[in-house]
Amino acid sequence: MTATIHPLHSEREPSLDPLMQLVADDMNGVNAVILDRMQSKVALIPELAGHLIAGGGKRMRPMLTLACARLVGYPGNRHHKLAAAVEFIHTATLLHDDVVDGSGMRRGKRTANLIWGNSASVLVGDFLFSRAFELMVEDGSLKVLKILSSASSVIAEGEVEQLTAQRRIETDEEQYLAIIGAKTAALFAAACRVAPVVAEASEDTELALEAYGKNLGIAFQLADDVIDYASDAAVMGKGVGDDFRDGKMTLPVILAYARGNEDDRSFWRSAISGERIGDEDLAQATRLIRSTEALSDTIECARHYGRRAIDAVANFPSGKAKSALTEAVEFAIRRAY
Amino acid sequence: MTATIHPLHSEREPSLDPLMQLVADDMNGVNAVILDRMQSKVALIPELAGHLIAGGGKRMRPMLTLACARLVGYPGNRHHKLAAAVEFIHTATLLHDDVVDGSGMRRGKRTANLIWGNSASVLVGDFLFSRAFELMVEDGSLKVLKILSSASSVIAEGEVEQLTAQRRIETDEEQYLAIIGAKTAALFAAACRVAPVVAEASEDTELALEAYGKNLGIAFQLADDVIDYASDAAVMGKGVGDDFRDGKMTLPVILAYARGNEDDRSFWRSAISGERIGDEDLAQATRLIRSTEALSDTIECARHYGRRAIDAVANFPSGKAKSALTEAVEFAIRRAY
Repeated sequence: MTATIHPLHSEREPSLDPLMQLVADDMNGVNAVILDRMQSKVALIPELAGHLIAGGGKRMRPMLTLACARLVGYPGNRHHKLAAAVEFIHTATLLHDDVVDGSGMRRGKRTANLIWGNSASVLVGDFLFSRAFELMVEDGSLKVLKILSSASSVIAEGEVEQLTAQRRIETDEEQYLAIIGAKTAALFAAACRVAPVVAEASEDTELALEAYGKNLGIAFQLADDVIDYASDAAVMGKGVGDDFRDGKMTLPVILAYARGNEDDRSFWRSAISGERIGDEDLAQATRLIRSTEALSDTIECARHYGRRAIDAVANFPSGKAKSALTEAVEFAIRRAY
Repeated sequence: MTATIHPLHSEREPSLDPLMQLVADDMNGVNAVILDRMQSKVALIPELAGHLIAGGGKRMRPMLTLACARLVGYPGNRHHKLAAAVEFIHTATLLHDDVVDGSGMRRGKRTANLIWGNSASVLVGDFLFSRAFELMVEDGSLKVLKILSSASSVIAEGEVEQLTAQRRIETDEEQYLAIIGAKTAALFAAACRVAPVVAEASEDTELALEAYGKNLGIAFQLADDVIDYASDAAVMGKGVGDDFRDGKMTLPVILAYARGNEDDRSFWRSAISGERIGDEDLAQATRLIRSTEALSDTIECARHYGRRAIDAVANFPSGKAKSALTEAVEFAIRRAY
């Protein structure tokens, strides 16, 4: 990386540890719900779901629900079920995503579709999605149900839009931001917003935490999309270059294509259409992305949304919850460089 | 067909016409909701969903919601949204089923997965499923949400169980009935039960209509499974022999296998395992199923569940709604012979 990027706070490497420590006790409750409610008399369901759920995910989204509940001083435990519902929705979309992308690696392990086949992944995803709604119905808040059913529709729309944008070099930054706002940020936003709803906080509080989640989600996805072109980031547990081979129009590609000369643009058209996706093509793509500063600009874009996320919680009282939520934003972006 | 089967009433061929006439006005309302709510700014969504939704389905499940509402004298129109939600859930499961089975024909047309690919079918199915929940949330009845989210989980469990039973010759009648009770009958039951819920009828009324739907659903699926081996039934709009080639353990196969001699059982093991699925093998399977009376016994089984469905509405006042619901049962079974 040639560009110099300054973290938002520069004392030490940002980490998820404060967030994890803040919610550790509550997360035990959430994990108990997750384990209990992924059970079924049909043995393949807990086997397949457990592979992904137990398999090293950060539980980012349920952690956000729990941390936002702490931020607004919620004393109960209704949010344990709702955080589990959020994680089930997320897991269902991962199962379906891996089928759609034909992925073979996720979180450093073989994907469920590779082990059990696409059919099982589709159907167990459907089961987890239904289970998520059952958990919300048990909680009984129509307001929560509205937030999460609406987020689910938006996620599915974003996934379909991403599919139609795939291998289309014309996809622009605006459409890209709409896609990641839907497929990724909508669930981050909903995960954060349900906390003030169960805490019966003000609508302004709901909107502030929704804005926090939405902006964090966009920053998070931008960082993910950088990592796919950052060859030293096998950290991620999925294959570097997956987006490239799938012809996904992520921001690094959109910027590099816009800034390329005629030869470069011709390369990108071939690559995104799927004609040039070998290892040497990926190396060429990475070179072009770096030489046009597309990666550092994408990181700058992530930092912009990250700052907006931090702005959104500016008026909340200082304390462990606010610090942890702030550092989570820095961590999400720091992964990318 | 060698066995003589007497229809429940023998005056004339049973038909869906009385049911369709009974609910025609309400169905216009449901269709308006369906058309309105399958829209999206992502053009592929209404295009793909419309192919299946506009494509000649009978709208059996929403008709049941509407007819049950008439049976209990419900005067409002809340059930229009809920009937549309039921149809969306059904459509989502059809989209996913066709991906799982690799089907190429549905309702006499090419399947969505064949035209737009598996990925689009999975994701648009997810969208319709989310939309179904949004419709229910708008209606605002937690009781309805509980019935339909629970049915959705049961359907997904049934689909996964069917997947694990596929190509397993050991699958027995009990497991088969559990599978069709889940994958098919649960949604019929829920479609019927939501009507007395919105009408605020008694719990006994709810349970009676749930039992009607459940038993009708089982009879309906048994008849479908007969049709797959009835060579003159191209009526169905899907390929005859699909279940055979997919190695599905339906009741006709379970009975024929149980009643076969050692040669026959050896044939079935090869066929269900996928080693013998050519046209001549399908002809052999059909011969064995007929010679063991497996088809007529499956129809008898469908008639048993059909009678239980009719029993379930015995105590409702006579009238057009009750007659239409009764004839719908006879129609569902009559399709099979």
